Amino acid sequence: MAAAAAPPPAPTPAATALPNPTPTGLPLFSRVRLAIPSDIPHIHKLIHQMAVFERLTHLFSATEASLSSTLFTSPPFQSFTIFILELSQAPFPPSPSPPLFFSPITQTTTLDLPIDDPESETFKSNDKDCGFDVVVGGFVLFFPNYSTFLGKPGFYVEDLFVRECYRRKGFGKMLLSAVAAQAVKMGYGRVEWVVLDWNVNAIKFYEDMGAKVLQEWRICRLTGEALQAYANPAI
Amino acid sequence: MAAAAAPPPAPTPAATALPNPTPTGLPLFSRVRLAIPSDIPHIHKLIHQMAVFERLTHLFSATEASLSSTLFTSPPFQSFTIFILELSQAPFPPSPSPPLFFSPITQTTTLDLPIDDPESETFKSNDKDCGFDVVVGGFVLFFPNYSTFLGKPGFYVEDLFVRECYRRKGFGKMLLSAVAAQAVKMGYGRVEWVVLDWNVNAIKFYEDMGAKVLQEWRICRLTGEALQAYANPAI
Repeated sequence: MAAAAAPPPAPTPAATALPNPTPTGLPLFSRVRLAIPSDIPHIHKLIHQMAVFERLTHLFSATEASLSSTLFTSPPFQSFTIFILELSQAPFPPSPSPPLFFSPITQTTTLDLPIDDPESETFKSNDKDCGFDVVVGGFVLFFPNYSTFLGKPGFYVEDLFVRECYRRKGFGKMLLSAVAAQAVKMGYGRVEWVVLDWNVNAIKFYEDMGAKVLQEWRICRLTGEALQAYANPAI
Repeated sequence: MAAAAAPPPAPTPAATALPNPTPTGLPLFSRVRLAIPSDIPHIHKLIHQMAVFERLTHLFSATEASLSSTLFTSPPFQSFTIFILELSQAPFPPSPSPPLFFSPITQTTTLDLPIDDPESETFKSNDKDCGFDVVVGGFVLFFPNYSTFLGKPGFYVEDLFVRECYRRKGFGKMLLSAVAAQAVKMGYGRVEWVVLDWNVNAIKFYEDMGAKVLQEWRICRLTGEALQAYANPAI
C-alpha cells in the first residue's frame, strides 16, 4: 500500500448472530505474537483485503513469493517486523518461557453478541500448540525509522489491518499499543504512521490516543520509470 | 528533524568572491561516499545547521554520543545509512578497488565564481587519503522502508542537507540520485521522503525530477508522554 494504516476502519455492519446464538457476555480471547515465515499465506491475504478496503487493488502486486524473499531476513525489530493478531474462543496457553524476542500479549474481550467469521477456515492459524481453533484476525507491519533531531530510532507503522468482522473491538489498538510498548522497551523516541486526510474517524481515533497529525508535511515518492531515470541521470 | 528533506534550500546570497579571485570556469570536484563513525562530529554539526534552517532548534536534542550509539550498528543499507558529500579543489583519487559496500560517486562542477566557504576549517574532511584539503558539504540519511502492496523494500530519505555555500549547484540532486541508484541496484521499488507543503520551490524541484507528491496522506506521530501512556494502557 501507499504507506498506510487502516484502523479504525470504515463503518461495518453490526456483527450478526450465529445460527445458534450463545448467551451474551461471551469471552473472546486475543493474542498478539511475532509473525513467522509460515504466516505468509495469511499475511498475503490480509494485505489483499487491505487493498480492497482502500480501493487500491490496481496497486497491489505482492505475491507470497515476493513477501517470502523480502520479509524475515533479519531478527525481529531490526528491520521489517510483523505482529499477528489471533483470536480464539478458548484461552491461549501460557507462552513458553522465556521468549527469545517478544513475549506474546493476550487480552480478553467480552462480546455482547458472538462474531460470525465467514472466513474462519481460510484464516485458521498455523499455531498447532494451542490444541483448539485459532484464527488470524489482523496484523501490523512496522520497521525502525530514525530521527536525526532526537538522535535515536523510532518505529514506523506501514500497515495496520483488522479483518472486518473483528473491527471496533479494540484490536487495532491492541496491535498499535504492542508496537508502542516495544518502542518504549527499546528506548525509541517515536511511533509514526500515516492516515488519509479524509478519514476523519481515524484522525479522531489517533488524536484521542495522544498522537499528533502533522498537517504541513507531504510524502514524495519516486518509483517506476521515474526512479530508474533519476538513478541514471547520464542515460 | 520531523521527517524532512531540505533541498532545494531557501534562496541564498550569491556566492562571494575570494580575496584573490581565480579565473571563471573554476572546477569544483565532488564525491559522495559512505559515512563512517569518525564522520559523526561533522554529521552532528550538519544536523544542527538543518535544525537552524528549519527553525526547529527547540526540537533538536541529538548529541554526538546519541548518534554514535544508534548509527553504524549494522552494515550499510540494511538499516540507517548515511552518504557524505565531500568537495575539493583537486580531483579525488580513484577509490581503492573493489569497494566493500559502495563505490564512491564523483562529479565535477564548473563554477562561474569561486565559493567562499566560511566554515572550511570546521568541516575539513577526515579522509586522510586524498593528500589535499577536502571539506564536508552535506549528507543524506536514509534507511529501508517496505511496501506491502509491492511486496518489496524501498528507501526512505529522512534527511538531505547541503551547507548553504554549496547550494544551487546540483549537490542535493547528486546525493538523492545516489540513493535512487542504490535502490535500483538493490531491486527496491521506491524512494520516498517528505516535504513541507508551503515549500513550493522544493515541490517543483521534486515534481520536475519525476516524483509524485501524495496530497492526501498525513503523518501521525506518537511521542513523549503520549507514547509512554499508550504503551502502557493499563497504567
